[in-house]
Amino acid sequence: MFFILQMAISNIRYGEGVTKEIGMDLQNLGAKRVCLMTDRNLSQLPPVDAVLNSLTKSGINFQMYDNVWVEPTDQSFLDAIEFAKKGEFDAYVAVGGGSVIDTCKAANLYASSPSSDFLDYVNAPIGKGKAVTVPLKPLIAVPTTAGTGSETTGVAIFDFKELKVKTGIASRAIKPTLGIIDPLHTLSMPERIVANSGFDVLCHALESYTALPYKMRSPCPSNPINRPAYQGSNPISDVWALHALRIVAKYLKRAIRNPEDREARANMHLASAFAGIGFGNAGVHLCHGMSYPISGLVKTYKPKDYNVDHSLVPHGLSVVLTSPAVFAFTAQVHPERHLEAAEILGADIRTARIKDAGLILADTLRKFLFDLNVDDGLAAIGYSKADIPALVKGTLPQERVTKLSPRPQTEEDLSALFEASMKLY
Amino acid sequence: MFFILQMAISNIRYGEGVTKEIGMDLQNLGAKRVCLMTDRNLSQLPPVDAVLNSLTKSGINFQMYDNVWVEPTDQSFLDAIEFAKKGEFDAYVAVGGGSVIDTCKAANLYASSPSSDFLDYVNAPIGKGKAVTVPLKPLIAVPTTAGTGSETTGVAIFDFKELKVKTGIASRAIKPTLGIIDPLHTLSMPERIVANSGFDVLCHALESYTALPYKMRSPCPSNPINRPAYQGSNPISDVWALHALRIVAKYLKRAIRNPEDREARANMHLASAFAGIGFGNAGVHLCHGMSYPISGLVKTYKPKDYNVDHSLVPHGLSVVLTSPAVFAFTAQVHPERHLEAAEILGADIRTARIKDAGLILADTLRKFLFDLNVDDGLAAIGYSKADIPALVKGTLPQERVTKLSPRPQTEEDLSALFEASMKLY
Ligand SMILES: NC(=O)c1ccc[n+]([C@@H]2O[C@H](COP(=O)([O-])OP(=O)(O)OC[C@H]3O[C@@H](n4cnc5c(N)ncnc54)[C@H](O)[C@@H]3O)[C@@H](O)[C@H]2O)c1
Ligand SMILES: NC(=O)c1ccc[n+]([C@@H]2O[C@H](COP(=O)([O-])OP(=O)(O)OC[C@H]3O[C@@H](n4cnc5c(N)ncnc54)[C@H](O)[C@@H]3O)[C@@H](O)[C@H]2O)c1
Ligand SMILES: [Fe+2]
Ligand SMILES: [Fe+2]
Repeated sequence: MFFILQMAISNIRYGEGVTKEIGMDLQNLGAKRVCLMTDRNLSQLPPVDAVLNSLTKSGINFQMYDNVWVEPTDQSFLDAIEFAKKGEFDAYVAVGGGSVIDTCKAANLYASSPSSDFLDYVNAPIGKGKAVTVPLKPLIAVPTTAGTGSETTGVAIFDFKELKVKTGIASRAIKPTLGIIDPLHTLSMPERIVANSGFDVLCHALESYTALPYKMRSPCPSNPINRPAYQGSNPISDVWALHALRIVAKYLKRAIRNPEDREARANMHLASAFAGIGFGNAGVHLCHGMSYPISGLVKTYKPKDYNVDHSLVPHGLSVVLTSPAVFAFTAQVHPERHLEAAEILGADIRTARIKDAGLILADTLRKFLFDLNVDDGLAAIGYSKADIPALVKGTLPQERVTKLSPRPQTEEDLSALFEASMKLY
Repeated sequence: MFFILQMAISNIRYGEGVTKEIGMDLQNLGAKRVCLMTDRNLSQLPPVDAVLNSLTKSGINFQMYDNVWVEPTDQSFLDAIEFAKKGEFDAYVAVGGGSVIDTCKAANLYASSPSSDFLDYVNAPIGKGKAVTVPLKPLIAVPTTAGTGSETTGVAIFDFKELKVKTGIASRAIKPTLGIIDPLHTLSMPERIVANSGFDVLCHALESYTALPYKMRSPCPSNPINRPAYQGSNPISDVWALHALRIVAKYLKRAIRNPEDREARANMHLASAFAGIGFGNAGVHLCHGMSYPISGLVKTYKPKDYNVDHSLVPHGLSVVLTSPAVFAFTAQVHPERHLEAAEILGADIRTARIKDAGLILADTLRKFLFDLNVDDGLAAIGYSKADIPALVKGTLPQERVTKLSPRPQTEEDLSALFEASMKLY
């Protein structure tokens, strides 16, 4: 048989204060018209200041778009795309969390491919999932959360309002040219944003480590250009995932609890890139697949610390709430990996039986979330049993990720997983 | 202070038989005139066959150059460059060990920059060390040794005959577009080529893990474009280096002793890329710096299993012979890392004292080499005390790497290191 693993790993630069080089980077790229994207909240905060200072110092000509929608939608993507098309930019800079970086990737893509229909590049089956063959402009991503790892991935996620479901665009072509990881930017994050974006790192690491092994993925594409970005777990992504998980275990609580703990925040910032490189090549599975309807069907939930007017379920929260149920379900397949993850997260496994691996990891996660004051399950963010059919329906089109679950799942299984996630403690 | 780490990690594809995709890759790149480079020995062996089959099947128009010199020289580079310039190629494929891949990188570089002088891009102080700003053609590297990791690095090494010293070209720009790591190609390697190229992996891992930390490197370049490829040890390269070292510890002996042990050979093939990503970003130090004159001043040594007419000291052998002396010398600085490496390589460190870290790692390496029938030191490959001044003189221009040694070294220190490496057992 013929098994293949393809890795495309991004360029990253890491260091406190490193943002001040961005003006020179743009000069080195010969950029004459730069598009700077961010969101309204960040446009008032130090990370954007630092970028503006550097651009000004280097005399870079730029236009700023600060209309990025937190947890972006098709509408908000289109608005940014419109701006990008009009601006005829030759380089992009995204300063923000996943919402900003993803929006900027989409803006770059569609402005570089002006005759394309929006659905052309959206993941199948919702869109056409066309391969990107047009050349894009350079994009420098400056992450301000320690979460998505979007600065390292070829993924851009949005909420398809009409269908009430999150989906995305996935192509190596939209991966940023450079990620500038400057841990100073994490210092302005309020507590819940640190927590929720940190849970995203946790789930990226856990899901990519437990994903279907790359040798079991099918079908095998006949031309390498059609190989998906998400390859299944593999010996390279495993290294990144485990390393990120160890950092989460050591530093996430500290980073949440103490905004002054620069060591913890810096380590989480790097871990989010590590986990991004891991899952960007291996993929994620059920926590992410199920999170998209959890976010997409949001009712009136307004999370603490998010300086926005609309209701939303933050991405990291939407993935982590199902994690105890998910890993209890998947552990059947690679129990030893589940047990190893539990141990890294602090469980005492000396007398553990391998057949209890799923329960042990689930308990470890529950305790971890409880200690961090996380809402008590889907019920606490506004869902009830009556919503389960809609949540399941919203998960079905997420086949691109759910098929990477090590254990195949029926609609009944999904129902049971949502039900088990209604209450955690 | 302002410390920066910049990573540029290559694209790799890994799998048994994956070479059969190369024709499609070239089609996808739109290549119309491909330059295929290899050496005379390999041109008769299965790896080149596999590439030729794929090119033919995809109807790729190519010219083959099989004149690569094993342990290349300035003359042999120039010959390949000449071929590349004449061919006006739009893509390159290198099938071989480091000698072939490095030659192909140089051919691509100078054919893309036809008005440059050969010395322009050669590392200073020997050459001018100019930054590469011309665009290169895509280069796909298909490594056939489990050694250099050249498929992942921006380095091309050659022997400058006139000066009797090895030096190279180092630029992110010459990094291959894609590395195709097909472990089937390692099956034709004879025993000593497995051993020597494996020692290169071992030293890449050990040296990059113990290199000067990136925060201590100076000077800090004022423009990011001038940041060296070799950054010093750092939290990202550490992950790759340790992982590669663990694989070497587990599989190198098996890979050397049993040509049928596909698991061991495949793991070593991937480890060579891991270690390449590690050292390609962190750098190597004294074993490599001192190896260049050891190779460059070769007298009459003809290694077993190398199907070539000229004398040569294989690169991996030239680095590993000084490794016991080098790590005994450097351990003063990060003794805990040296002890950790010794433990990974099998030493029992339960009762070890931290101040003995260097001796323990040196002894562990000596035992490792003895078990693998490695020549007993520099004396066994033709050097005597009288050669030491010339060996030291040849090391001095290797400042690009020697300055990454965690412990600074005088000429006397270098003399002592060569002397201590004359006999190992
Ligand atoms: N592309 C990918 O690979 C990927 C992966 C996972 C998630 N995502 C997507 O990313 C989005 C979530 O991104 P996120 O978790 O990074 O958060 P976010 O970008 O949605 O930002 C959340 C809130 O935090 C604020 N914020 C961000 N950085 C701040 C800082 N340093 N100081 C103060 N406030 C700050 C923002 O202004 C915003 O209000 C979701 O749409 C999710 O689906 C993408
Ligand atoms: N660019 C880098 O990052 C880097 C790093 C380390 C070393 N190097 C350089 O690479 C060169 C050494 O490369 P190497 O150790 O890979 O060996 P090599 O390319 O010099 O090859 C050594 C011998 O092995 C034969 N061979 C290779 N693959 C074979 C196979 N599969 N089956 C049978 N025979 C095979 C070759 O024909 C040759 O005779 C040196 O010049 C060294 O300085 C480069
Ligand atoms: Fe995520
Ligand atoms: Fe080497």
